[in-house]
Amino acid sequence: MAELLLYIAARAQHVHELIEPALHAGKLVLCDRFFDATLAYQGGARQLPFKLVKELNDLATHGLKPRLTFLLDCPVELGLRRAKERYAEKVGAKAGDRMEQEEIAFHERVREAYLAIARQEPNRMIVLDATQNIDALQEQILQEMNDPLILCSAL
Amino acid sequence: MAELLLYIAARAQHVHELIEPALHAGKLVLCDRFFDATLAYQGGARQLPFKLVKELNDLATHGLKPRLTFLLDCPVELGLRRAKERYAEKVGAKAGDRMEQEEIAFHERVREAYLAIARQEPNRMIVLDATQNIDALQEQILQEMNDPLILCSAL
Repeated sequence: MAELLLYIAARAQHVHELIEPALHAGKLVLCDRFFDATLAYQGGARQLPFKLVKELNDLATHGLKPRLTFLLDCPVELGLRRAKERYAEKVGAKAGDRMEQEEIAFHERVREAYLAIARQEPNRMIVLDATQNIDALQEQILQEMNDPLILCSAL
Repeated sequence: MAELLLYIAARAQHVHELIEPALHAGKLVLCDRFFDATLAYQGGARQLPFKLVKELNDLATHGLKPRLTFLLDCPVELGLRRAKERYAEKVGAKAGDRMEQEEIAFHERVREAYLAIARQEPNRMIVLDATQNIDALQEQILQEMNDPLILCSAL
């Protein structure tokens, strides 16, 4: 619960200080993780009530929603290996961060929760195959973003 | 909002890791500040909705309430002078902490909110005159706690 509340506190400050002013200035905002991550990690994986997580997310975002979300999906083992490699490069420790140290079943629940959101909100969330290499994936994202139909449905 | 959520996160962890295990072990728990402080500071002084602050407090405490609360009340100027003296002794800076740096009107709203809680819950909250010196105040608290009628009404 404390972990959930800390993420919500960070989100409230982030939305108020950065995202809302940027939107009011007419800027395009790109986020790496947003409220879906809290639903997937604290709701899906930690099994706190989804209803509570949603209410707290709304409190922090004032109901603000991304127009378009890309879910970079891949098997848990591959995702974890990549995350731990990044962590080792950055921090120099092999164990991974607080989340990455969790067991495989935890990460399976995270993935399942993300995929469930994508099924519930197919117009907002586009699932991409993240087993591809980074260049192919980037190309695909750019194509999706340039598709006028997708941007229209998102707007 | 972020400040409120940080206090609630700290409270959730405090209740779960310290207070609930102590109560389950049959111990008497003494707290210096608890959820009333969040109502007074973030509700009364920062003017976030009381209903929201109460709901978040309940989330963190699972509805747990102190049986007895002493409100050490004094004029804002005196309270602030004492707080800043303590802060200067401890930290070596004269400005006071995040809260103590707020304007007088802020602290008047804190005091008013505490007194309002005391009016709403006279059986739980005992208001003491904190302009007295520390020995007189301590004596009075001990007397109140030894009064079987008060402990009974609190239990």
